[in-house]
Amino acid sequence: MILTVTLNTALDLTYRVPALTPHASHRVTQVIERPGGKGLNVARVLAALGHETVATGFAGGATGATLRELLAPTSVRDELVETAGTTRRTVAVVDNATGDTTQLNEPGPAVTAAEWTAFRGRFAELLDGARAVALCGSLPPGIHVGAYAELVRLARAAAVPVLLDTSGEPLRRGIAARPDLVKPNADELAHLTGSREPRRATHDARRRGAHAVISSLGPEGLLAATPDGLWRAAPPAPVRGNPTGAGDSAVAGLLAGLVEGLPWPDRLARAVALSAATVLSPVAGEFDPTAYEDLLPRVKVTEETP
Amino acid sequence: MILTVTLNTALDLTYRVPALTPHASHRVTQVIERPGGKGLNVARVLAALGHETVATGFAGGATGATLRELLAPTSVRDELVETAGTTRRTVAVVDNATGDTTQLNEPGPAVTAAEWTAFRGRFAELLDGARAVALCGSLPPGIHVGAYAELVRLARAAAVPVLLDTSGEPLRRGIAARPDLVKPNADELAHLTGSREPRRATHDARRRGAHAVISSLGPEGLLAATPDGLWRAAPPAPVRGNPTGAGDSAVAGLLAGLVEGLPWPDRLARAVALSAATVLSPVAGEFDPTAYEDLLPRVKVTEETP
Repeated sequence: MILTVTLNTALDLTYRVPALTPHASHRVTQVIERPGGKGLNVARVLAALGHETVATGFAGGATGATLRELLAPTSVRDELVETAGTTRRTVAVVDNATGDTTQLNEPGPAVTAAEWTAFRGRFAELLDGARAVALCGSLPPGIHVGAYAELVRLARAAAVPVLLDTSGEPLRRGIAARPDLVKPNADELAHLTGSREPRRATHDARRRGAHAVISSLGPEGLLAATPDGLWRAAPPAPVRGNPTGAGDSAVAGLLAGLVEGLPWPDRLARAVALSAATVLSPVAGEFDPTAYEDLLPRVKVTEETP
Repeated sequence: MILTVTLNTALDLTYRVPALTPHASHRVTQVIERPGGKGLNVARVLAALGHETVATGFAGGATGATLRELLAPTSVRDELVETAGTTRRTVAVVDNATGDTTQLNEPGPAVTAAEWTAFRGRFAELLDGARAVALCGSLPPGIHVGAYAELVRLARAAAVPVLLDTSGEPLRRGIAARPDLVKPNADELAHLTGSREPRRATHDARRRGAHAVISSLGPEGLLAATPDGLWRAAPPAPVRGNPTGAGDSAVAGLLAGLVEGLPWPDRLARAVALSAATVLSPVAGEFDPTAYEDLLPRVKVTEETP
């Protein structure tokens, strides 16, 4: 199975409104509730691709209970650890007139030392049987900034390939623990390396400890610096739509390709096709399976000189 | 005790953000959860005034359970009827830079015929022992438009004074069932009578069946057409602040004055002082008790020729 970790889970609400006008009152025409947080998004895509998937992290309170109820009927196995604090909500307000989204993110509840210890125990148990693990998203309050570094070391000690997708200081610390993959976007790379030049920043990130760095170039695809070479992967044509969850779909593609033992160009093609099919989907954060099948053979992967 | 009815309850969320920018992502700095819906707001103010208060209406699902948990430690007695549908949320996004509020209201869940029948039974039981009843807010989907008229007739048959605070067709039908009081604002009056001239519209509303019509004039106070005469009540000076819940506080003041057997001018002074003290409160929908005590003797009540 593939294990995904979401320390800062959320109950994601999507509200559709005819048009968002600040300081006015709005009748919400549609409400969608979904288990959220980056690792849960990755898990949903992996499950849709037919992979046995287990999700861990934290959930608590009434919103945590709702999140788990929504997860129960899916094929993602729930191994979330209960917290005394209440799981945060995020609200995505979609303006039906323009299609634009306004995002409101509640702060996460503080995780206690005892809850973190319980989580580490659960994580170590789950590594036994995992073919790959993804550590995704921000850290909730109460968890030390080196938490991802600690989890990367546990995964490496258990010989489970580990992907880290986070930002800021948790990324800086985590990358030094030598994860197998990191998947930064342009802002995360710039924050880590000080450079906005993709090749330079990607190489720099790799020198900091990651075995492979897969940098997101936004609509232009991915740049991958790996032990086997340097590749650029791009969709056949730019796609327009809602980019919510596109990065999480790319992570799912990379992990699926990894456990299937695919060579790098095929893994990257999968990640780019899933990401583009997510942008094209009418539902934020879901991928369009028909678009994925159509795009997969048409992703352009080119090897570059390092 | 005083009974308040909220057929379309809500879990009210207040989000503070540094500044609301459409199509951007926001970190919510403060989250407040509160039992919401106009009747529950009225009940909270009545309880704060020291009145024994009972709240009925509907609640269901995870959000309904949270609403009831929040109500449990208060002195408002919970007589809500359980629904299969999930209680709606409302989100008030307060912009810390300007103090302005952007409101997002989820649609309510549909109430079934069986749930409506169960509610009517509970309502009839609760009338036995009620000294007054307030019917507040919109009707949830699934409830017929004449529902408030039905409840007004039940209250009148039980000889319990009944106040109706709603809008649109439910107000039009409800007023024809001859409630003791209605408390429309300018928009509701205009919709009901076609007139925006306060005296004309208030008299017209009274001719439609209500024994007394207490029209809100916004910051200028109230205009009351009653069997005992016509009064205007105004705060000593205009107050600035957040008007959320000011109308509900006025309803609480009218009910409190009614059960205490106060003459009309004293009831109106109470309603205006509570309403202004709610606008002045730093917390939306709460009233400032010190401001209330200060304002009460200074409200200007003048009798007018009908």
